[in-house]
Amino acid sequence: MSTCDSEPGPSPELVADVFARGCTSRRTLEDIGTKWAQLALLALGEGGYRFNALRRRVAGVSEKMLSQTLQTLERDGLVSREVVSTIPPRVEYALTPLGEEVARRLRELADLLERSVPLVDAARNAYDARA
Amino acid sequence: MSTCDSEPGPSPELVADVFARGCTSRRTLEDIGTKWAQLALLALGEGGYRFNALRRRVAGVSEKMLSQTLQTLERDGLVSREVVSTIPPRVEYALTPLGEEVARRLRELADLLERSVPLVDAARNAYDARA
Repeated sequence: MSTCDSEPGPSPELVADVFARGCTSRRTLEDIGTKWAQLALLALGEGGYRFNALRRRVAGVSEKMLSQTLQTLERDGLVSREVVSTIPPRVEYALTPLGEEVARRLRELADLLERSVPLVDAARNAYDARA
Repeated sequence: MSTCDSEPGPSPELVADVFARGCTSRRTLEDIGTKWAQLALLALGEGGYRFNALRRRVAGVSEKMLSQTLQTLERDGLVSREVVSTIPPRVEYALTPLGEEVARRLRELADLLERSVPLVDAARNAYDARA
């Protein structure tokens, strides 16, 4: 069982818990939940990407937001960044083994939501009709 | 295969795709990715909750944010809200069948991140040491 070493307080050996404020796992869940992180992880689950190709895949993201998102995911150990020394140098992004595991679970969630579009649309229409 | 009926444009019968701007599934993925929605869904995966008990479980959320989050999840058909006519009336929140499926997948993601705390902490320390 993993512990939350970064948890401040009297007991540093708390069990990791996404509900615990200050637990690394809560912050990581938050990092991967932003819409651009979700889509970047799903895209990289398809294979490695260069920055501009990834930006085209994640339609709608700004250069700055994608760059910040990738830095956060790299810091969390989910994405690796490799500079290939061509002229001009090429920067390639890929998933780490942990990133692959996260992306696989995110893909299962995305598959479920894609299958459930008619159900969600019906729920929204019913909700809006009541409002 | 589900279609994205809410997609504006010339072809209303696009296949559901979380990468497609305007697709219901992209928006739903975004709705469940906010930190409070993630934690509310994980909490409700443990069983039904009254509002105040849910607020205590999702440590750190304000009354207003939790209320907005639950409205969004109810509109998406993931959470049901039942007013029990006691004095004073009680409001109970629970997952719908689709909400249960979403919460199960989120729980798998949370389990992975809880197990991976040492890995993520090590990655962050290495990243910060390079910066």
